[in-house]
Amino acid sequence: MKKSYLMTPGPTPIPEEIRLEMAKPIIHHRTKEYQAIFKDATEGLKKIFKTSNDIYTFTSSGTGAMEASITNVLSPGDKIIVVRGGKFGERFSEIAGAYGVNVVNIDIEWGTSPEPEAIKEVLKKNPDAKGVYTTLCETSTATVYDIKLIGEIVRATNALFVVDVISGLGADDFENDAWGVDIAICGSQKGLMIPPGLAFSSVSQKAWKAVETSKLPKFYFNFKKYKKAYLNTDTPFTSAITLVIGLKRAVETINMEGIDKVIARHKKLALAVREAANAIGLEIFSKSPSSAVTAVNAPKGIDADNIIKLLKTEFGVTFAGGQENLKGKIFRVAHMGGIDEEHTLESIKALEQALAKLGYKFKQGAALAAAEKALTPT
Amino acid sequence: MKKSYLMTPGPTPIPEEIRLEMAKPIIHHRTKEYQAIFKDATEGLKKIFKTSNDIYTFTSSGTGAMEASITNVLSPGDKIIVVRGGKFGERFSEIAGAYGVNVVNIDIEWGTSPEPEAIKEVLKKNPDAKGVYTTLCETSTATVYDIKLIGEIVRATNALFVVDVISGLGADDFENDAWGVDIAICGSQKGLMIPPGLAFSSVSQKAWKAVETSKLPKFYFNFKKYKKAYLNTDTPFTSAITLVIGLKRAVETINMEGIDKVIARHKKLALAVREAANAIGLEIFSKSPSSAVTAVNAPKGIDADNIIKLLKTEFGVTFAGGQENLKGKIFRVAHMGGIDEEHTLESIKALEQALAKLGYKFKQGAALAAAEKALTPT
Repeated sequence: MKKSYLMTPGPTPIPEEIRLEMAKPIIHHRTKEYQAIFKDATEGLKKIFKTSNDIYTFTSSGTGAMEASITNVLSPGDKIIVVRGGKFGERFSEIAGAYGVNVVNIDIEWGTSPEPEAIKEVLKKNPDAKGVYTTLCETSTATVYDIKLIGEIVRATNALFVVDVISGLGADDFENDAWGVDIAICGSQKGLMIPPGLAFSSVSQKAWKAVETSKLPKFYFNFKKYKKAYLNTDTPFTSAITLVIGLKRAVETINMEGIDKVIARHKKLALAVREAANAIGLEIFSKSPSSAVTAVNAPKGIDADNIIKLLKTEFGVTFAGGQENLKGKIFRVAHMGGIDEEHTLESIKALEQALAKLGYKFKQGAALAAAEKALTPT
Repeated sequence: MKKSYLMTPGPTPIPEEIRLEMAKPIIHHRTKEYQAIFKDATEGLKKIFKTSNDIYTFTSSGTGAMEASITNVLSPGDKIIVVRGGKFGERFSEIAGAYGVNVVNIDIEWGTSPEPEAIKEVLKKNPDAKGVYTTLCETSTATVYDIKLIGEIVRATNALFVVDVISGLGADDFENDAWGVDIAICGSQKGLMIPPGLAFSSVSQKAWKAVETSKLPKFYFNFKKYKKAYLNTDTPFTSAITLVIGLKRAVETINMEGIDKVIARHKKLALAVREAANAIGLEIFSKSPSSAVTAVNAPKGIDADNIIKLLKTEFGVTFAGGQENLKGKIFRVAHMGGIDEEHTLESIKALEQALAKLGYKFKQGAALAAAEKALTPT
């Protein structure tokens, strides 16, 4: 049987014990048994977010929680600042636009991270801005932003600090409370190692004050409904029971290892892929590479999508391609969640073989050797 | 090992082959393999809805699709008519209120179904009403509404006909197109036999015209985004992959038997429970009982919640209780999805034993005998 390696930035491979846990006969959600599971899952998530704030669980993709981070704290005509350096920064702008919120976009080159000073300046010019919306890891460009530094700037203002950590959580450093994040948004199918279908949102006290005066319409994603239910270890609408059961098991696994060790492991995998790419003359796309996913420039004259296709069909390895302007130019290799050294080395081996087949000239074996070196315990 | 019987109106038991299908290693959603699954699931759903309209799949609970049925076809200040005869009729009113839509409520006694003539009259008095919102099976009261007759009335007007079939689909008769339903809303965890986490919405051509002029804000649940993606057999945001894989298998199972036979089977199970209850002197709560779920009045002097508790702890049988005013007064036994004759007979046996233990006087065995008779093939 041919093995297959899912190296995409979501969904990520789901450990077998989590899959089997979710495959057990379903239980009802309004029971003490389920409440205990839901409570454990939420408390476990808090450790991973490094927060003492409430975390609400929505049945939706991450985009649902992004929408919630706008509709719950703003009113029509409010102004926010959005960092646009990729597809997910753009999404915040689009959602705000759909709800009649004015957006001051900070447009940065794809693959770069925003200068904290630039954000400081825009905040100074827009003292009425109600929030700064940005991402930890901009998945589309595999770029990590300096959320800690940006947080220091935003926290000195009245603006809320809203961070999409969907792909970064569990791979890039993140400290919800210490970094002054008011709303952090996450999804289930990346570092958290379960299928897509759940989204999460932490909500700070500063954010709650904004919730009280927010006038944008909402119902399904209304934080107040989730808070009320949360106090009874419940959700306002039927919970995605099996996914929450998987989540409980996944956060237990993560917290058993310890979130800092999990992140260190991801950093090592990301380093291994970067070193491997460099060793065979390939460039890393991002100037601030994330540890959740690495974007590699395709060699001159070779379409990245051809590399991806060959890897998939002949080697059973699934990489992600570039989006929009980056289509055909980069391939993306994830390090999130259950992706391990075996997957990573197998992918690098397959990448070397695919590149050779596509006519790229390089010293075969050099990438694998560099990766092994990076992965060797010190 | 003690067996357990989940007889609640959602979630319903998930057949083992569906659970194991969902437990396989996850695949990526932007692949031909997944597209084929998603297409099969959607086409299968259309047969169950009896529609040639598009059906969009949301990652959310049923409430998300209810919200979508309001935000996608209405503008602020628009007027709609809502039939309120239970918790789910009320929810339509609440969502509309949250979005600044004016609601003309038709309040009916819980456990009764609306008179089509009454709806006709309200529509005549409110010719500017943009929609009539109601339910096929009002789960909270286990009552089925005459959607066919109401549809004949609404279709003669400019108003859209929006029906929540979340708990009724696959159990009560339903014909989306023949009955003139413009938007039908469903969820995954009832007749469709998969876990909660997906919601569905059929959208007619008449509804599409309203979508074009609708001004209520929306993003995550925006029909236009789903239609655009649908044309490429895709969803605009990451699909709940494992649940869709389960859905494909579930609709195959249903369509293999044939939706009419599935409904006939549910009718028989519902009849068996009603006959069983009557045989031991218990009354059915609803005046228009659904075949998806049956609500039974607790005998005088016995709290329904005590019956439910005893069934759960001593017999492993889970019934649902009454909500709001009906709490302690009724218990609800579902017939949906994977619930079969074995589950039903076991539940009736357990109910007899629990009632005897709680001091209710009746001829033990009579309920089981009546159920068996109702289930005997003719």
